[in-house]
Amino acid sequence: MRNVTLGIIGTGRIGKLHAENILRIPGTRLKIAVDPKVDKAWAENIGLNYAHNTDAIFSDNEIDAVIICSPSGFHIDQIVKAAEAGKHIFCEKPLGFDPRTIAEALRVVEQQGVKLQIGFNRRFDPDLVRLKQAVDSGTIGRSYLISITNLDPAPPPAEYLAASGGIFLDTTVHDFDIVRYLSGSEVEEVYSAGAVLIDPSIGKIGDVDTAMTTLKLENGAMALIHNSRQAVYGFDQRVEVFGSKGSISTENRTQFQTVLKTSQGVVTDKPMDFFLERYKESYKAEIEDFIRVIREDRQAAVTGRDGLIPVLIALAAKQSLKEERPVRVENYSG
Amino acid sequence: MRNVTLGIIGTGRIGKLHAENILRIPGTRLKIAVDPKVDKAWAENIGLNYAHNTDAIFSDNEIDAVIICSPSGFHIDQIVKAAEAGKHIFCEKPLGFDPRTIAEALRVVEQQGVKLQIGFNRRFDPDLVRLKQAVDSGTIGRSYLISITNLDPAPPPAEYLAASGGIFLDTTVHDFDIVRYLSGSEVEEVYSAGAVLIDPSIGKIGDVDTAMTTLKLENGAMALIHNSRQAVYGFDQRVEVFGSKGSISTENRTQFQTVLKTSQGVVTDKPMDFFLERYKESYKAEIEDFIRVIREDRQAAVTGRDGLIPVLIALAAKQSLKEERPVRVENYSG
Amino acid sequence: MRNVTLGIIGTGRIGKLHAENILRIPGTRLKIAVDPKVDKAWAENIGLNYAHNTDAIFSDNEIDAVIICSPSGFHIDQIVKAAEAGKHIFCEKPLGFDPRTIAEALRVVEQQGVKLQIGFNRRFDPDLVRLKQAVDSGTIGRSYLISITNLDPAPPPAEYLAASGGIFLDTTVHDFDIVRYLSGSEVEEVYSAGAVLIDPSIGKIGDVDTAMTTLKLENGAMALIHNSRQAVYGFDQRVEVFGSKGSISTENRTQFQTVLKTSQGVVTDKPMDFFLERYKESYKAEIEDFIRVIREDRQAAVTGRDGLIPVLIALAAKQSLKEERPVRVENYSG
Amino acid sequence: MRNVTLGIIGTGRIGKLHAENILRIPGTRLKIAVDPKVDKAWAENIGLNYAHNTDAIFSDNEIDAVIICSPSGFHIDQIVKAAEAGKHIFCEKPLGFDPRTIAEALRVVEQQGVKLQIGFNRRFDPDLVRLKQAVDSGTIGRSYLISITNLDPAPPPAEYLAASGGIFLDTTVHDFDIVRYLSGSEVEEVYSAGAVLIDPSIGKIGDVDTAMTTLKLENGAMALIHNSRQAVYGFDQRVEVFGSKGSISTENRTQFQTVLKTSQGVVTDKPMDFFLERYKESYKAEIEDFIRVIREDRQAAVTGRDGLIPVLIALAAKQSLKEERPVRVENYSG
Repeated sequence: MRNVTLGIIGTGRIGKLHAENILRIPGTRLKIAVDPKVDKAWAENIGLNYAHNTDAIFSDNEIDAVIICSPSGFHIDQIVKAAEAGKHIFCEKPLGFDPRTIAEALRVVEQQGVKLQIGFNRRFDPDLVRLKQAVDSGTIGRSYLISITNLDPAPPPAEYLAASGGIFLDTTVHDFDIVRYLSGSEVEEVYSAGAVLIDPSIGKIGDVDTAMTTLKLENGAMALIHNSRQAVYGFDQRVEVFGSKGSISTENRTQFQTVLKTSQGVVTDKPMDFFLERYKESYKAEIEDFIRVIREDRQAAVTGRDGLIPVLIALAAKQSLKEERPVRVENYSG
Repeated sequence: MRNVTLGIIGTGRIGKLHAENILRIPGTRLKIAVDPKVDKAWAENIGLNYAHNTDAIFSDNEIDAVIICSPSGFHIDQIVKAAEAGKHIFCEKPLGFDPRTIAEALRVVEQQGVKLQIGFNRRFDPDLVRLKQAVDSGTIGRSYLISITNLDPAPPPAEYLAASGGIFLDTTVHDFDIVRYLSGSEVEEVYSAGAVLIDPSIGKIGDVDTAMTTLKLENGAMALIHNSRQAVYGFDQRVEVFGSKGSISTENRTQFQTVLKTSQGVVTDKPMDFFLERYKESYKAEIEDFIRVIREDRQAAVTGRDGLIPVLIALAAKQSLKEERPVRVENYSG
Repeated sequence: MRNVTLGIIGTGRIGKLHAENILRIPGTRLKIAVDPKVDKAWAENIGLNYAHNTDAIFSDNEIDAVIICSPSGFHIDQIVKAAEAGKHIFCEKPLGFDPRTIAEALRVVEQQGVKLQIGFNRRFDPDLVRLKQAVDSGTIGRSYLISITNLDPAPPPAEYLAASGGIFLDTTVHDFDIVRYLSGSEVEEVYSAGAVLIDPSIGKIGDVDTAMTTLKLENGAMALIHNSRQAVYGFDQRVEVFGSKGSISTENRTQFQTVLKTSQGVVTDKPMDFFLERYKESYKAEIEDFIRVIREDRQAAVTGRDGLIPVLIALAAKQSLKEERPVRVENYSG
Repeated sequence: MRNVTLGIIGTGRIGKLHAENILRIPGTRLKIAVDPKVDKAWAENIGLNYAHNTDAIFSDNEIDAVIICSPSGFHIDQIVKAAEAGKHIFCEKPLGFDPRTIAEALRVVEQQGVKLQIGFNRRFDPDLVRLKQAVDSGTIGRSYLISITNLDPAPPPAEYLAASGGIFLDTTVHDFDIVRYLSGSEVEEVYSAGAVLIDPSIGKIGDVDTAMTTLKLENGAMALIHNSRQAVYGFDQRVEVFGSKGSISTENRTQFQTVLKTSQGVVTDKPMDFFLERYKESYKAEIEDFIRVIREDRQAAVTGRDGLIPVLIALAAKQSLKEERPVRVENYSG
């Protein structure tokens, strides 16, 4: 088993999580973390070197691969530099908001022959993997329609929202990826409607906080997506696929499995409300798979193109919302 | 308590059900059933007179009210005749497919001062009543979005389909009514997409068998509807309302409450698959309420207008499907 | 199909229920109700004759069968008289508290060749029927252990309790019947323990309000029973059978299938709390089966012996509670 | 925060788990593992020193505490030696099978003033902790009865069974601990019945594979326990407490939260079937708590006495099974 040496860019919440997950994978070495505002105490506590400039990674010949967890605005530039430095790349979603720039970066990646995996972690959620297996093995026959409920427990901070690209690029982008993953098909047309029902400040930055989106797929199937910035009962994460032989769905996960019965009713636990806890296993699994991709010299399960297409769909959704009509998704080939 | 004497027109499946339910209501008398092809054995068995012509009802001064369960094409004409004969009217849905004709009939009803109740039975489903109460009492705060899954267990016979007016007028019309009922708001705009995924013969008559519809409501809330002519696991009937303080939903009902655990998994009963069984209680309750409406001389819970508006929405949905764009719902005032 | 004419003795809550169920069975005629304190308004409303003396039934040659719903203390005497009058008999449980007297009455029934069915209605509960089918068809393999939770929502009135024979003869007797029904085996030994935890007045009449009972069966399997006079969340009715290939259980039934999700948790409906509502279907089914037993001239599904044996087990349970040791069940053959 | 240095005795399945959990606790140092047949590859992989003799721990002045995971037969001797060496002790259950010897060891522990925590890990299961909180906070009022279903997925190897002390000392001992934990009361009397229904070889070594046990508690409440060496659908772990204001229970945990609906029924995942996976969180939490006990110089949550009493109850259960009568539990004070 080949040893893999890694560097990580960005030590925010998600960067730290990836770093800690890598530390647990046998045969890997996390050599350095780069962040202009690195959390030194954290790095020292887990025995990790750190630097403030990405050159510390790109110019280090020992480093095989880089984990990019910087703010989205830096992703494309760092992907290009990493590829040119011959490093394999794991990059958090989204790749960016400009399809042309993304496509150019993907060409560099391809030319350099390095691996690129996008952080659509939900594909590695055990329940979603099981759904995919059921769909692919024919358990529910031909798939007709995919229905997704994807509601955040509470709106993110205003600063985050402002840079998020809006609900479709920030939130629904996960659902677009799930639809492509489960259906094995591309999205032809998207119709989105939305409203500001939860937080007027979201409206002020030109975004919506509640949205519903319908998709028509190339294979004839369809999808329905419900998004919201706030579900006070927790992080509502449900996916259901309806087919000719039945349906299969993932239900919400709860922290507790207790049942309280009183004269007022029967009470069970609400859904987990923190995405890092809810998708804990998927974050572990995606990084483990990235290490295997490098070792086995195979294509990533979530490719650069898998990172680009949902951005195209999200941009079409934004346009649909604005123009109040369904919009075709152009498969960018510029 | 005033005695109420009724006649019934149409003794198909639903007519028989209403007749049997009426027989159980104290202080009511079901005097006669009219049907050109009346099931005599059935009528005699329950001690019910019968005739082949509706005049037997309209010209009978003892009869206070008529239950119209004839094929939809006859509804408008029979409503008008009943109203002119001074009979209160319970009419099965749909009122018809032509808004102008419906509106004219409603004017006659109004002029004659008779009661008219439309057979949107699901409003009387105990679970839906409970949802309505929760929504109205503020349990879930302000409502954001209503999500409805309404899937038939299997397509109806070809003959039925051909006369059904299509999936939106036949099936989704119930959901349009539920959205109006739960939200207390009108629908402004509808977008529908659909496909023929289940039965090609449905496509040949110009209909779809799988549809998804999104609604924008006057009060700013939204709705998502999923319809299908076939869910092999049963009659899938779920309604969920999401609001600022939580969500409330109705889950499917099952015949059995047994749980089988084996090395293959944990198996519970599938949803009931027959609408007359699933909505048994609502059929009883709507007729009981109609009798009370007459006795208490108050407005029906489901008025003629409640019968007209969903037809307008369904027609807009049909147009949306055809023209592949969202369509405004015109509140017919012709 | 042969017409069956019936009389009913006792028009309390359960007598009225049986009467109304009989009225719905085609080909039956409920000729008369006998009760020293008959509810005349009720009888007249459903068009039923009534009398104060049982002779009105026993001496009426038109009457084929009698439904005995009088207080338990009268059961044996009325069974004997009915048998001697050549009437088929449906008798509510319990047959009585004295095995010798019961056995003598059963001998008269046998000599007269009339049918006798005992009102252990739960055997006709759709869920329990399904459990029985699963057990008999080998779905769960060899049965190891039956676990029953049978908790009343609230203690019955003091007057009822005083005449009830105690919790084992009044409540657990149903569970003893279920164990015999599901296992197809006899009970060899019973151990019961109990306490007065809910209502001190129950202790004052020498009874317990909370009890746990274990049974050893002839076929080597076992059973565990939990009884209580009070479960504030409803009528808790669960049966689970564990076997070599899995387990199968019946879960509680609820009136509503709604799910409320808020920041406080997820709330569903509590179990139904009224036995006549919870077991509505089983009461209908047992009387329908009794009519078929008469028509098809076959043995009742719940025989006189099925009425006697649970009394013997209950008496052994009482003795076990008192003597604080397991007690063998003597199959009375006196 | 004081650093804690530990040694571990026994590197079987459970020893390895504890070692790996300790490695993740900040401020702890696992210095050495002792096992006559230590898994060197495992130790080296996690950078752990190892030895074959416990003296390597007892004579090392740097070591504050020892984790004893050796076969049960060695527990008492190692506890005594550890205590005499001034080491704090975490010892896996059971302490042993002889109450006199256990009591003597506990006296040594007390004299030496070291901490002793027993490995009844289930007390640290998040669901059980929540049950305990609900019971203690009065959510369900006064507790009447505790019902426990504790079924292994499959019998352990014959070798393990032979040394296990029988089902009551091996399996039910956990349930006795849970009853004491949840009730805060002692067990006064135990009645056990059992049979060999699953594996005849279990009968040949004088044990049973299916057992039911009832307990009478000092506080007047009761408990019902169902144990089995085999539930083919998984590791069935349910606890329910019934009280004056309601009931609270823990349901089984599943690996997947998927729901498959087909014409055959609705299928969900079966319970997890491996105890190390099912109780993963409780194993982490108990060791973390042990470290806190040392740091905060407080009494362990599961004391030596908490290790002794369930053995006394289990021995009474064994005697009850043999003598077919309820047996009083003597609180050993010899």
